[in-house]
Amino acid sequence: MSATLVTGIGELVTFDPAHPGPLGIVSDAAVLAVDGRVEWTGPSASAPRSDADEIVDVAGAAVIPGFVDSHTHLVFGGDRAAEFEARMAGRPYTAGGIRSTVAATRAAPDDELRARLQRFVAELHAQGTTTFEVKSGYGLTVADEERLLRLAREVTDETTYLGAHVVPPEYADDPEAYVELVTGDMLDACLPHARWIDVFCETGAFTVEQSRRILTAGAARGLGVRLHAAQLGPGEGVALAVELDAASVDHCTYLSDDDVERLAASRTVATLLPGVEFSTRHPYPSGRRLLDAGATVALASDCNPGSSFTSSMPFCMALAVREMGLTPAEALQAATLGGAAALRRDDVGHLRPGARADLAVLAAPSHIHLAYRPGVPLVARTVRA
Amino acid sequence: MSATLVTGIGELVTFDPAHPGPLGIVSDAAVLAVDGRVEWTGPSASAPRSDADEIVDVAGAAVIPGFVDSHTHLVFGGDRAAEFEARMAGRPYTAGGIRSTVAATRAAPDDELRARLQRFVAELHAQGTTTFEVKSGYGLTVADEERLLRLAREVTDETTYLGAHVVPPEYADDPEAYVELVTGDMLDACLPHARWIDVFCETGAFTVEQSRRILTAGAARGLGVRLHAAQLGPGEGVALAVELDAASVDHCTYLSDDDVERLAASRTVATLLPGVEFSTRHPYPSGRRLLDAGATVALASDCNPGSSFTSSMPFCMALAVREMGLTPAEALQAATLGGAAALRRDDVGHLRPGARADLAVLAAPSHIHLAYRPGVPLVARTVRA
Repeated sequence: MSATLVTGIGELVTFDPAHPGPLGIVSDAAVLAVDGRVEWTGPSASAPRSDADEIVDVAGAAVIPGFVDSHTHLVFGGDRAAEFEARMAGRPYTAGGIRSTVAATRAAPDDELRARLQRFVAELHAQGTTTFEVKSGYGLTVADEERLLRLAREVTDETTYLGAHVVPPEYADDPEAYVELVTGDMLDACLPHARWIDVFCETGAFTVEQSRRILTAGAARGLGVRLHAAQLGPGEGVALAVELDAASVDHCTYLSDDDVERLAASRTVATLLPGVEFSTRHPYPSGRRLLDAGATVALASDCNPGSSFTSSMPFCMALAVREMGLTPAEALQAATLGGAAALRRDDVGHLRPGARADLAVLAAPSHIHLAYRPGVPLVARTVRA
Repeated sequence: MSATLVTGIGELVTFDPAHPGPLGIVSDAAVLAVDGRVEWTGPSASAPRSDADEIVDVAGAAVIPGFVDSHTHLVFGGDRAAEFEARMAGRPYTAGGIRSTVAATRAAPDDELRARLQRFVAELHAQGTTTFEVKSGYGLTVADEERLLRLAREVTDETTYLGAHVVPPEYADDPEAYVELVTGDMLDACLPHARWIDVFCETGAFTVEQSRRILTAGAARGLGVRLHAAQLGPGEGVALAVELDAASVDHCTYLSDDDVERLAASRTVATLLPGVEFSTRHPYPSGRRLLDAGATVALASDCNPGSSFTSSMPFCMALAVREMGLTPAEALQAATLGGAAALRRDDVGHLRPGARADLAVLAAPSHIHLAYRPGVPLVARTVRA
């Protein structure tokens, strides 16, 4: 048994209803972690010091639960810096650019993809992210999708089979045959490495009917359902996600009033990806509208080389506050507890007793600084269970 | 004599006309620094290896000149996180909030301000900033303004006397008497510690006529002139800056066509502060319009606890690309060479022979990634002369 007491915390965010406010904040606080789980949180003065093998004093820093990034695409080859530069000079974003990353990914050996993935994981940890999802979707052959998920599984349990990212060039004349592959041999090969199945339901990618077939096939094999929808325009993707009890529907850039009502009445999380609107110059959706309706909102990075190459959850929070109408507290909740809900996890995203002892120590006295000091690397230290 | 060769640079940005393009880029490059000055840049293959006492290989990373942040307010007490939170919930930004920082700053002992300033300096260096300006302006008494400039001078030569930040509460009924103080005893006291004089020329702060008197008084004593203008609305501040041959006019959020023409025909730099528009939810000015007219543009952080508490030049660049119409290359130039022009320095902001050997090594293969990967701390290492 190993017990660590973190003390001298200026502001501790727990999301524990035993502590005040929606964030469950304790001032001048301490956390006792035993064998990687939160055992106790409360005022420093009443900390169970004698139970601790080790005491760490953070000298007044704020401590928050580690971020839960529920949407990333971190296994890929190449980059698309030139496409980004052209887009900033006026070229619009379409789903088509994904194919250039597919070509680079197929050409990259395992070791190269693995080394890169490990660099991204180090980058996430350094920025306070302690739980993250990784999707396939840049392979689009049976062997490559299997390979990407196998590599992703080396770094996280939250792996998502996204064979239906786009229709690869070799199936351009027969997308239905590609849907057959995705729901057949490719699904068989990917199943051992995946927890989730996802589809890019969008003009230029997959129709609602194709998405339904693919997600239903995955769910029948035991995969959890999640969906990319309403990124480039309105559509029926959100309705489909709710119909299938998806854990999350991601992007939600263009929502109808009916979509918002559906989400609020469901347990499907609306995952906002403000890095995408930032990096594609799309208009930002209102997170306020979703929260006011009673929907659960998550924030995620969508870290990928095309539409959002940020891996910074604090940056996403700052955008959500500036552009989507969230308060700093709501943005923090969406980046932690919201992300956990989007992955249907109850052991992360908060610091209630029993949670994983995943936390970020900030070089700041309050969680507000994450939005108040945009772009500044404020995570001084990340602790994982 | 000490000679260091940095080699294995994937992309070196020099701004040296001897190398290709507006950025003077060398691929697979090396830099030789002798006694803190750039001696030579060029292809790794022809690097003068035998001249080096030490060889550092950066394994393909991009290297850029260190950022020059020509506008900060880093000596202050307290913070305004609660004001930020309220503003994000809808309260407008006015110049009045400055007074709450004045109260906290006056109450803070030297050691506290110094310790804080040193933390900010470490933060700047970690993010690739190697030259920075610091203004006074949160003291607003003779003793406090002198004190703030004395502290600022401990960390930079680029110190700016900003006694005319706002009229302090004790002069609310007689602002002209405060202008007398600023141009009289306060100027006398601050002169030994300042290189520049600045005024916040804006409704709620100082009029154009007051600004002219204050700047002229400083210039007569040998201080360089710079000006805050056109932040909250259009006005005659930009015309005044050009009339006085100011090194820089900062904010430029609201420019008339005449202002743009005046700037283009002058050697006064237009310094854009996109962190301010981000953090106050003001509309962004067009940097494109200034560049197309032929004006020199700088980007700076305006790091301060009220309107822009970022210290991240990469964040400012990403905003300038997303929101102000700059290309990634133009944003980098504005954040380095542009900042140097705003400080009338020719020894920083570039890596031509003779320049200070101030540079940032990126965890990225190209300068484009600074805008392409917003929020991610991409400065792997900062080297100062």
